[in-house]
Amino acid sequence: MIKSSAQGTRRQIVEAALATLKEEGFAGATSRAIARRGGFNQALIFYHFGSLDGLLLAALDATSAARLARYRAAVAEARTLEDLAEVAARIYEEDRDSGHVKVVSQMVAGSLARPALAPEIVARMQPWIAFCEEALRGVIAGTPLEDVAPVADLAYAAVTFYLGVNLLTHLDADHTRTDALFARTQQLAPLLAPFLTRP
Amino acid sequence: MIKSSAQGTRRQIVEAALATLKEEGFAGATSRAIARRGGFNQALIFYHFGSLDGLLLAALDATSAARLARYRAAVAEARTLEDLAEVAARIYEEDRDSGHVKVVSQMVAGSLARPALAPEIVARMQPWIAFCEEALRGVIAGTPLEDVAPVADLAYAAVTFYLGVNLLTHLDADHTRTDALFARTQQLAPLLAPFLTRP
Repeated sequence: MIKSSAQGTRRQIVEAALATLKEEGFAGATSRAIARRGGFNQALIFYHFGSLDGLLLAALDATSAARLARYRAAVAEARTLEDLAEVAARIYEEDRDSGHVKVVSQMVAGSLARPALAPEIVARMQPWIAFCEEALRGVIAGTPLEDVAPVADLAYAAVTFYLGVNLLTHLDADHTRTDALFARTQQLAPLLAPFLTRP
Repeated sequence: MIKSSAQGTRRQIVEAALATLKEEGFAGATSRAIARRGGFNQALIFYHFGSLDGLLLAALDATSAARLARYRAAVAEARTLEDLAEVAARIYEEDRDSGHVKVVSQMVAGSLARPALAPEIVARMQPWIAFCEEALRGVIAGTPLEDVAPVADLAYAAVTFYLGVNLLTHLDADHTRTDALFARTQQLAPLLAPFLTRP
């Protein structure tokens, strides 16, 4: 019971950290603000996470793990590059509506303000690169495209691009052009079909 | 003489702001820190730029104008998508070495911390989108690619991607994978030749 209660407390603190990052940004996500929002004593942050940065990274990990599970389930059904493009557009919309985009952008911005966070953020990109590699391998492995565009490079490019999309979405209240990009990618995917036919 | 002296002072203040952004980041670029670095009275910042944000945006404008002029000159010689990819790789290296990447990343991060800056940053992306459109139009207009991938969408995608590259370069001291991406783009460009042949 003690263990499950400690987990419950941790979860509650992480939820408060996520809500604070979404509504007040990295700069506003102080221990005091998070504790006030969650209605707990701020000493609990240090007891459970060691430091404010420890909690913020745990919060990023929690939203990322949830999103990654969602992405994995969605791409499991994708057979073609067109399917992948469609999945990407749909999940990006969810990321935006759920506030995941805000949390990621704020943590990236925060890691430029507190350089000690930078390697932690970079390390947390690896599962996403690995995930993209896996998703792309399914449609590219064994095709002529693989020879010219190795899956590892494409996956890194996809994550780089998504980071740009993420920040622009957060910076620019007008999402028309970002939405147009996803729509365009879906239209373009079939063009690559000749490169994606396995001999 | 008074006018040229005022311009000299403005330039000196902008230089101090750029150096501070590069070395201390957005969070460290306070009026006090900039004035100390430049060896002038911090009241001059408000006299010449109205506010700290006014100065920081003027600094971003100064480095952006210089880089845009450099980009324009470099792409003027580009005839093919391959040429453009080669130019992009070369100029990205200059952006990185000169600290331009740091200034852009710090200002983007700063605009997430001070939301009043966000529309200013978004507005400052427009000349880059226009520039990309112009550069891409030269190699794409009138080709079959234009029908499926309008220049405006491609330009927005290029700027989005470059924003991601910019932030990753600043976050991750290891540039191996970013360098590999530019090299790969150069290898891939000729593959698009069939789509880029004008009828």
